[in-house]
Amino acid sequence: MIKTKSEFQESRSLKEISLESADLASQENRQSESDRRKFMRTSLLALASSPALALADESIQKDFPSWSTTPGKGLNEYGQPSKFEAGIKRGIAKSYGDLAPGTGSARTPIEKLEGIITPSGLHFDRSHNGTPEIDPSKHQLSIHGLVDTPLNFSVQSLLRYPMISRTYFIECAGNSAANIIAPEPIQATAGTLHGLISCSDWTGIPLSVLLKEAGVNPQGKWVLAEGADASGMSRSFPIEKAMDNAMIALYQNGERIRPEQGYPMRLLLPGWEGNMNVKWLRSLKITAGPTHTKDETSKYTDPLANGKARQFTFELGVKSIITKPSGLMKLPNKGFYEISGIAWSGAGKVTRIEISTNGGKDWFDAQIDGPNQPYCLVRFRAPWSWNGEPAFLQSRAIDEKGNVQPTRAAYKANNAVDGRYHNNTIVTWAVLADGSVQNAYL
Amino acid sequence: MIKTKSEFQESRSLKEISLESADLASQENRQSESDRRKFMRTSLLALASSPALALADESIQKDFPSWSTTPGKGLNEYGQPSKFEAGIKRGIAKSYGDLAPGTGSARTPIEKLEGIITPSGLHFDRSHNGTPEIDPSKHQLSIHGLVDTPLNFSVQSLLRYPMISRTYFIECAGNSAANIIAPEPIQATAGTLHGLISCSDWTGIPLSVLLKEAGVNPQGKWVLAEGADASGMSRSFPIEKAMDNAMIALYQNGERIRPEQGYPMRLLLPGWEGNMNVKWLRSLKITAGPTHTKDETSKYTDPLANGKARQFTFELGVKSIITKPSGLMKLPNKGFYEISGIAWSGAGKVTRIEISTNGGKDWFDAQIDGPNQPYCLVRFRAPWSWNGEPAFLQSRAIDEKGNVQPTRAAYKANNAVDGRYHNNTIVTWAVLADGSVQNAYL
Repeated sequence: MIKTKSEFQESRSLKEISLESADLASQENRQSESDRRKFMRTSLLALASSPALALADESIQKDFPSWSTTPGKGLNEYGQPSKFEAGIKRGIAKSYGDLAPGTGSARTPIEKLEGIITPSGLHFDRSHNGTPEIDPSKHQLSIHGLVDTPLNFSVQSLLRYPMISRTYFIECAGNSAANIIAPEPIQATAGTLHGLISCSDWTGIPLSVLLKEAGVNPQGKWVLAEGADASGMSRSFPIEKAMDNAMIALYQNGERIRPEQGYPMRLLLPGWEGNMNVKWLRSLKITAGPTHTKDETSKYTDPLANGKARQFTFELGVKSIITKPSGLMKLPNKGFYEISGIAWSGAGKVTRIEISTNGGKDWFDAQIDGPNQPYCLVRFRAPWSWNGEPAFLQSRAIDEKGNVQPTRAAYKANNAVDGRYHNNTIVTWAVLADGSVQNAYL
Repeated sequence: MIKTKSEFQESRSLKEISLESADLASQENRQSESDRRKFMRTSLLALASSPALALADESIQKDFPSWSTTPGKGLNEYGQPSKFEAGIKRGIAKSYGDLAPGTGSARTPIEKLEGIITPSGLHFDRSHNGTPEIDPSKHQLSIHGLVDTPLNFSVQSLLRYPMISRTYFIECAGNSAANIIAPEPIQATAGTLHGLISCSDWTGIPLSVLLKEAGVNPQGKWVLAEGADASGMSRSFPIEKAMDNAMIALYQNGERIRPEQGYPMRLLLPGWEGNMNVKWLRSLKITAGPTHTKDETSKYTDPLANGKARQFTFELGVKSIITKPSGLMKLPNKGFYEISGIAWSGAGKVTRIEISTNGGKDWFDAQIDGPNQPYCLVRFRAPWSWNGEPAFLQSRAIDEKGNVQPTRAAYKANNAVDGRYHNNTIVTWAVLADGSVQNAYL
């Protein structure tokens, strides 16, 4: 059968219709495991009964585009994304406009990404006075304070140490703050609202190795970490975390760590709030107690509903976000969609992600796709057939310590009216009858 | 204690000496598990007895570099590596020089990388007629041949399908060929010699889903995959692989797949030789048997010692390479070094990596670092104390099916003199008395 170009196009639009037919297989989401499996099977069967037109070999041969008939581009030393994906970029929010162009955040477009690795070029960046351009041959890391032997390391020396590789997420304490402070839901993408979360394959030196070499004194109970950037970003944390799983990260996704993530090195405190993972790390001072730096007093503290404030919230709460479908997307028609998103917990592993399509009345389990590693993003997926009626999509994550992702109402009840940090509450995407997807409070 | 700048520098060089002191802890590599653990501990204890000079707080405050006192760069939409790492790039080998600048290979600098993820910009590229610049709105994937319903998919349609995410390596069948065909070992980096291996977090559609939708006829036993590039790269493979774990990959390391890896989509046949993972995939034709395309007859076949040739070698052998230390590096002095490298197997999981420092006389186990996933790189590590004498470093991987990485002599015995593909033999790095590291045949 020979096809013309217009018949090809007709075939394409019929394909879209075939996707729609999947919703005939299931009028609602079933909640039991076997029912959901059956739903998946029947959805695929519905797809299999596709009315797509037959496609003959001859037509494949007849319509070669230019890129199939002329030599392509030459080999290159460091690749970049396709020019057709140039719109996939970080969203920039400058805190003080062009007065301080490096102060603010660049957010990961999580709704455009898949899997669990964030491409290094799209890792979120929260900086307090810009990204320093550090010459690694002149940078040093000092370990001092309450230690037997203060130590001073060149980058070259550190690169000779034994290393470990771990896939860890980092999330800013201010992620999703807009969904708490805005009285009405802001209509924006998932990345704009929740894109201060990223995940990389980090390689570096266990901090415990370096601290044992320096010899921490018995009265040394806390560590003050300081960055080499112009803001002198500084945070203090208990020595137990340093000895447990803290890392001096030198590599990110295989290559040396990127400038916006702390080149030539950053502190990594797995599962703890983003700003504690001090970038451009230059100094670790062992102290008897917390230092109460500007970055842990005037910022990143949580005013509570009872009039007090919580100073230290190290461990990030269990959290999940549906990235497809999500804000500002539009479903082209009724039918089959995969609900997909990311989940994580500062307490370790995520054990379960539940999905609701009716605003929390009913829940069913999503599937965790790929390896489930502690302090690491998981990708979750669930099949969904949209019947064309308004829907409210939610995800709710549960971690290995039994923590359950809370509601927005619970956050508002526990925190002062101007609280905004550490918002791990359930996100709701409303799907309207015309298929448009909106940010919603439930 | 206040330090001058020269005292800081003295502290650095003493630090180097302290690393050397680690070799006092162990005159040789022990082979039992407990002995190796003890070796690791004593090495760290030796490091802990470092003679590094004390470092006073005051000196930290006195010597702030310019990047600590002036605002850094502004936020940006898509990040790049530090300019100080500009030397970390793919090594280009054009098959026909500037006559066909896109024909040849760009190799991953594996000796500069860490962990298991290859940054997308450094993923190896083997192209037969350049990288096409494909407009995704005009690209189609056709499934046809021995099927009930030939199907024709736009990229947009495919993006609506249910997806899976998996971390898989890809290795070119011609990787490490130089170490077989060159009569004397070529002195080059690990990346130049063995850099046609990379690993990514891929996301895409299980091919079985699309084939079930098309309905494969009972007589459909093979699949012919064809790329949209100007070389019309084509390979055929058994339907069993298509139904098992083959994937239509649309995303690489979170973002849409890069042009050099097949944008807007590539075939992924986990564990099978690189060129079968057809890039810029445009057509999958179901056939009764193999097609015997140019790319599976005139290329990628193995002439054997008995005068015959093996046409199809789908599954890649179990393999490992020490990347640190490796070719053209120089150990600055005696003392502690971490031996680190990558291992993989086309048969599934790597179960064990053994290390020898004396050219294969004695072996001890390396540690597998991080999750061990099938058809995925593993990162291995082992502590080593170099005593200043010549050494021969080797790694030998074993996979879950009991396959053991062979010697170069075994390859030469089984293959014709001009055989060069599918070289998974043990790599030897010779460490000379002056610390320089050379490629060697043993």
